Amino acid sequence: MTGQFITFEGGEGAGKTTQISRLKARLEGLGLAVRVTREPGGSEGAEKIRSVLLSGAAKGLGARGEAILFAAARADHVDRLIKPALAEGTWVLCDRFADSTRVYQGEAGVSADALAMLEAVAVDGCRPDLTILIDVPAELGLSRVSRRAETGAGEAPDRFEQDDLTIHQRRRQRFLDLAAQEPGRFLIVDGACDPSDVEMRIWVGVYAHFRDLLRPLADAGAPTSDTPRPETEAGDGTAI
Amino acid sequence: MTGQFITFEGGEGAGKTTQISRLKARLEGLGLAVRVTREPGGSEGAEKIRSVLLSGAAKGLGARGEAILFAAARADHVDRLIKPALAEGTWVLCDRFADSTRVYQGEAGVSADALAMLEAVAVDGCRPDLTILIDVPAELGLSRVSRRAETGAGEAPDRFEQDDLTIHQRRRQRFLDLAAQEPGRFLIVDGACDPSDVEMRIWVGVYAHFRDLLRPLADAGAPTSDTPRPETEAGDGTAI
Repeated sequence: MTGQFITFEGGEGAGKTTQISRLKARLEGLGLAVRVTREPGGSEGAEKIRSVLLSGAAKGLGARGEAILFAAARADHVDRLIKPALAEGTWVLCDRFADSTRVYQGEAGVSADALAMLEAVAVDGCRPDLTILIDVPAELGLSRVSRRAETGAGEAPDRFEQDDLTIHQRRRQRFLDLAAQEPGRFLIVDGACDPSDVEMRIWVGVYAHFRDLLRPLADAGAPTSDTPRPETEAGDGTAI
Repeated sequence: MTGQFITFEGGEGAGKTTQISRLKARLEGLGLAVRVTREPGGSEGAEKIRSVLLSGAAKGLGARGEAILFAAARADHVDRLIKPALAEGTWVLCDRFADSTRVYQGEAGVSADALAMLEAVAVDGCRPDLTILIDVPAELGLSRVSRRAETGAGEAPDRFEQDDLTIHQRRRQRFLDLAAQEPGRFLIVDGACDPSDVEMRIWVGVYAHFRDLLRPLADAGAPTSDTPRPETEAGDGTAI
């Protein structure tokens, strides 16, 4: 069985990193092989391009040139890491993917047509089976990022995190618009609540989306059979 | 009046550099402003990407990733140099452009669909008014390149020049195929003969292609009225 490809999207400070590591643990609890990766970057060639992009050194290229560089990094990431991992049955959890490019470079002024063409070339048929959008108000996300910077936890804010609040709000709306266009692929989760609540809402959504694959593993009493069966916990229908 | 955009294409050792400088002199002789540039490169951001591409360091990216990097360089070149120059009325002569990507990256295995999408994004509507294909047998072009390297003239052969003869032959055929698909844009010139003959054939072709723009300048006795009127010299119809 090939692996499944799950991407996480959302603004800065949404809590993607935390939630990815928790979902990884849950999937591994069912006996699955899981690979966590991120964009931009994720493979050797792509990480080189990432450092150029996030430093702002490529800003001189203009928004279209920058979007194309993201595509180059994505092509490498897809070819070298994502496709091989999926082919060998590993589930891939990716922190940002093509939707981030649509949102960030779209907001920067690159036309939707150009972005769609670049995406088609870069992903080369490799599209997410599920995209988890962790949605938080821009103010909350930004306050989390600045707290993280003050306490010295995590990396310093990169240039995308330093942009104005208004831009963050517009990006949030763009993510929600993308989700509305493809409701079957997107799972929108409210990221404003407690991380454990977010974790459970994600797990319920993932379990439902991949029920045919995950239920047999849970029923078979996979290595850690203490993995909660979300349909029980979320039985009252209020968890999401 | 906006400038005209002329690209030069052909395999290694076709004599593009020489002919570009001769055409530049002829156009300037009619009083036109002319800017010579080249790909990959031509603008600051694009030159950075050029050095990465020609060094072979990006070969690890794979053919698709590499093609995307060429597109990023092209987008910068188009935005920063070509479009602004044309807008101010300068004629632009460019050593290689999108057709080289179609040929070289097409030969390297990137699909025509992917290349067409990348080209559309990169050129952003800026297509050559005329493309001069200097056609030489692969053996001749390669022998010129190796002679150049032996005598220390010009740069050392880059990694594209080091490829096998068979590949050079296939690229030559791809260039000819492109020209056959768009006969109105392409001028095919036999580059095997004497450089002065090649120069005159190019000049006759350029003059004919842009007759409405160039003839008034020639008739007005532009700054250097000794510029030959090619229709006189090529009056016997055998020059091309």
